[in-house]
Amino acid sequence: MSTNVDAALDDLRSQLGDRVSTAAAVREQHGHDESGWPVMAPDAVVFATERGHVATAVVVCARHGLPVIAYGTGTAVEGHVQAVRGGVVIDLAGMDQVLRVSPGDMDCTVQAGVTRKQLNRHLRDTGLFFPVDPGADASIGGMAATRASGTNAVRYGTMAHNVLSLTAVLPDGRVIETGRRARKSSAGYDLTHLLIGAEGTLGVITDITLRLHGLPEAISAAVCAFPSVEAAVQAASETIQSGVPVARVELLDELQMRAINAYAGLDHAEAPHLFLEFHGSSAGVAEQAEATQAIAAEHGGTAFQWSTREEERNRLWQARHDAFPAAMQLRPGCRPVITDVCVPVSALAGCIARAQEDLAAMPVPGTILGHVGDGNFHVILLCDPDSEEEHAAAKAFNQRLVEQALALDGTCTGEHGVGLGKRGFLAREHGDAVEVMRAVKNALDPQGIMNPGKILPDPPSG
Amino acid sequence: MSTNVDAALDDLRSQLGDRVSTAAAVREQHGHDESGWPVMAPDAVVFATERGHVATAVVVCARHGLPVIAYGTGTAVEGHVQAVRGGVVIDLAGMDQVLRVSPGDMDCTVQAGVTRKQLNRHLRDTGLFFPVDPGADASIGGMAATRASGTNAVRYGTMAHNVLSLTAVLPDGRVIETGRRARKSSAGYDLTHLLIGAEGTLGVITDITLRLHGLPEAISAAVCAFPSVEAAVQAASETIQSGVPVARVELLDELQMRAINAYAGLDHAEAPHLFLEFHGSSAGVAEQAEATQAIAAEHGGTAFQWSTREEERNRLWQARHDAFPAAMQLRPGCRPVITDVCVPVSALAGCIARAQEDLAAMPVPGTILGHVGDGNFHVILLCDPDSEEEHAAAKAFNQRLVEQALALDGTCTGEHGVGLGKRGFLAREHGDAVEVMRAVKNALDPQGIMNPGKILPDPPSG
Repeated sequence: MSTNVDAALDDLRSQLGDRVSTAAAVREQHGHDESGWPVMAPDAVVFATERGHVATAVVVCARHGLPVIAYGTGTAVEGHVQAVRGGVVIDLAGMDQVLRVSPGDMDCTVQAGVTRKQLNRHLRDTGLFFPVDPGADASIGGMAATRASGTNAVRYGTMAHNVLSLTAVLPDGRVIETGRRARKSSAGYDLTHLLIGAEGTLGVITDITLRLHGLPEAISAAVCAFPSVEAAVQAASETIQSGVPVARVELLDELQMRAINAYAGLDHAEAPHLFLEFHGSSAGVAEQAEATQAIAAEHGGTAFQWSTREEERNRLWQARHDAFPAAMQLRPGCRPVITDVCVPVSALAGCIARAQEDLAAMPVPGTILGHVGDGNFHVILLCDPDSEEEHAAAKAFNQRLVEQALALDGTCTGEHGVGLGKRGFLAREHGDAVEVMRAVKNALDPQGIMNPGKILPDPPSG
Repeated sequence: MSTNVDAALDDLRSQLGDRVSTAAAVREQHGHDESGWPVMAPDAVVFATERGHVATAVVVCARHGLPVIAYGTGTAVEGHVQAVRGGVVIDLAGMDQVLRVSPGDMDCTVQAGVTRKQLNRHLRDTGLFFPVDPGADASIGGMAATRASGTNAVRYGTMAHNVLSLTAVLPDGRVIETGRRARKSSAGYDLTHLLIGAEGTLGVITDITLRLHGLPEAISAAVCAFPSVEAAVQAASETIQSGVPVARVELLDELQMRAINAYAGLDHAEAPHLFLEFHGSSAGVAEQAEATQAIAAEHGGTAFQWSTREEERNRLWQARHDAFPAAMQLRPGCRPVITDVCVPVSALAGCIARAQEDLAAMPVPGTILGHVGDGNFHVILLCDPDSEEEHAAAKAFNQRLVEQALALDGTCTGEHGVGLGKRGFLAREHGDAVEVMRAVKNALDPQGIMNPGKILPDPPSG
């Protein structure tokens, strides 16, 4: 590249002063997420506390042809923020203001660095909440950029369903709003959804208007053991088809349950389990739990426990909340490789069964966690951090699983995004549509400065 | 234009034979929708019964630089299908196959010409239904292309929420699928939502995979009169905020109620009314109706009637179903002009009140119908078809109403789309984002052959 990085950084400092850091530790810290991808440090980090800082940084980078990478909490898991071609990371954590909450409209506007837990604390007295829960206390901007979802997407949808509009800085520094505060509109192209899941490759999201939901009057939680993964998945999908508006329905396999028993001193059966949550009126959540119990029983479900009392609910769900650290404790010090396929729900049980067979022949242990209402599940492969062989075996496992999911008309990534990790699958998943994505990218970012090397595979010509 | 239309049509006939019609009556019939925009006939109509016909027609048109306009049922209301620059209309009504229904996945795939009523008849024995209901028995392809919604969007969402993926013919004849059958994915740019609402300006939608919903075990309907529009809107939004999962909540104003009484021989009070529908378990819908009645009473609601029995429900909702023909009967032979703004729900009562004041000074009568759960409402202005003055007054009214909606952070069109009718408002609504839309359009359709003259205003340079 002919970019003169030093001149660019001088320009950046002249505009943004102390907001610019080139300290090695800061650059290193901003050069990786929670994936296993190696650190790729940027040339500089800009700490933004307002949209103007973002726009200024982007304009300077555009002038010098320097890459721009937006950074929230660094909790992505597919290599989303690695500075593969250097450039400037814009840290948005300081854009942490909840700008507006309108209970009457059940919406709010937040800056990109606000985290989901921070937002829900802010909403505490409004009777409203923001449901999307990917596990990590991620920033709302990052969640929008990766089209995140999580455990309660089955009821409340993903970020794609809960973002009403966005403000974004484009690759040339212009600021656009993608929509207004009306809850629906058919006025022109949907730029909101174009930016959701674009992982910062089309622009930097600075403000997000979110749909909020009424806190349910009552919540009930339930846990049930099943004789097989297939029985558990079948029970979950029949429950949903029967019209029970399940808020969460999570599958944990035998090994995951064994891990949890060991980690938290619990005594669940070492069998596949469903963990469920119901939201509604007091009478409604009881009715939902009972209807679910009846369906579970038809599929051999046993040890069905449910409760509406908060303490008891928390006890029942503790196992699910502890799933990731519990899995890690199966092999202390291990380095996880996490898969993320999503398939049609009718194909889920078969897909998991084949993954379990494949797992049985693997040199590393792996547990299974599934958002079964959506057909999405994760295998957590626990690799020796010093063994390249194990890591290669885990990557090959992921490859086989993605191929299986694609053959079932599923996707390589249900909720983690593409980053560096899934680029290689995009052409197989989308065919010619990848070239349409590339045309959009080239139209909006002709210099290719926005988070380069992510999402889109290299062009066919190399 | 240098296009040699005769040569293009010869080429088209050589490829598609009898599927091509240039009969004047056929061209005229395909040169308008249900809006007041004049007929603008295409040069030819192609009757497609399979995707290959569409691709062939598009390739021929691309070769000759001829416009391509997709046509479903012709029930759009903003001048969506008018052939402003001539060209070829592709009639998709013959693509009327339901290709697949998967009850276990609660989804289906249909060809673009399948209508929503046809689909729901097809689904009758599956326990599932497709909820989006814009009133007209529109084609699913047209509903996707215009991002349609209607009375139950408050519970089930719009087309943007209920389309899982699309197959489309691009402006160069390539066919893409925008996604797979997984219920969620974060694999790359969201081309599904880019095509939804693009009104055929980026490609022709040929197949649609839809999310289906379980038929509720029970349905209840309710009707309630209110002392004012404001009281009715307030009751509706408090009901939703309180967590009642209202399936439909429609506002009808005094004049609309008078029209309905006259049209159907009913004796509702001539006061603003809410019409509601609740979906759930038998106990649930009773609970929802009772909770709503209590909130309505706090806002002066009277004559609250509700029922779960089908016959009685139909009687209660008849007034809402008859709203449009009843309004037309206020002035037999009239030509309607229909507005479609959508504003934040908290601004809705004020927006309607100002519209009512404005209506009072108008030379033509107008009734108000609102999808109040979404903040969307229509004024039906009843103009003398022979009076250009009245039509001009109605257009000026619409202009004032849109300006008011935009000032309230709302949209010029909640569900009808842009077509020819709302192009002039797009720049004011979206600002610089319109230029981003134009960049996307130019990238995907560099020749500008897909439904030209729609959605995007003319470029600033003219």
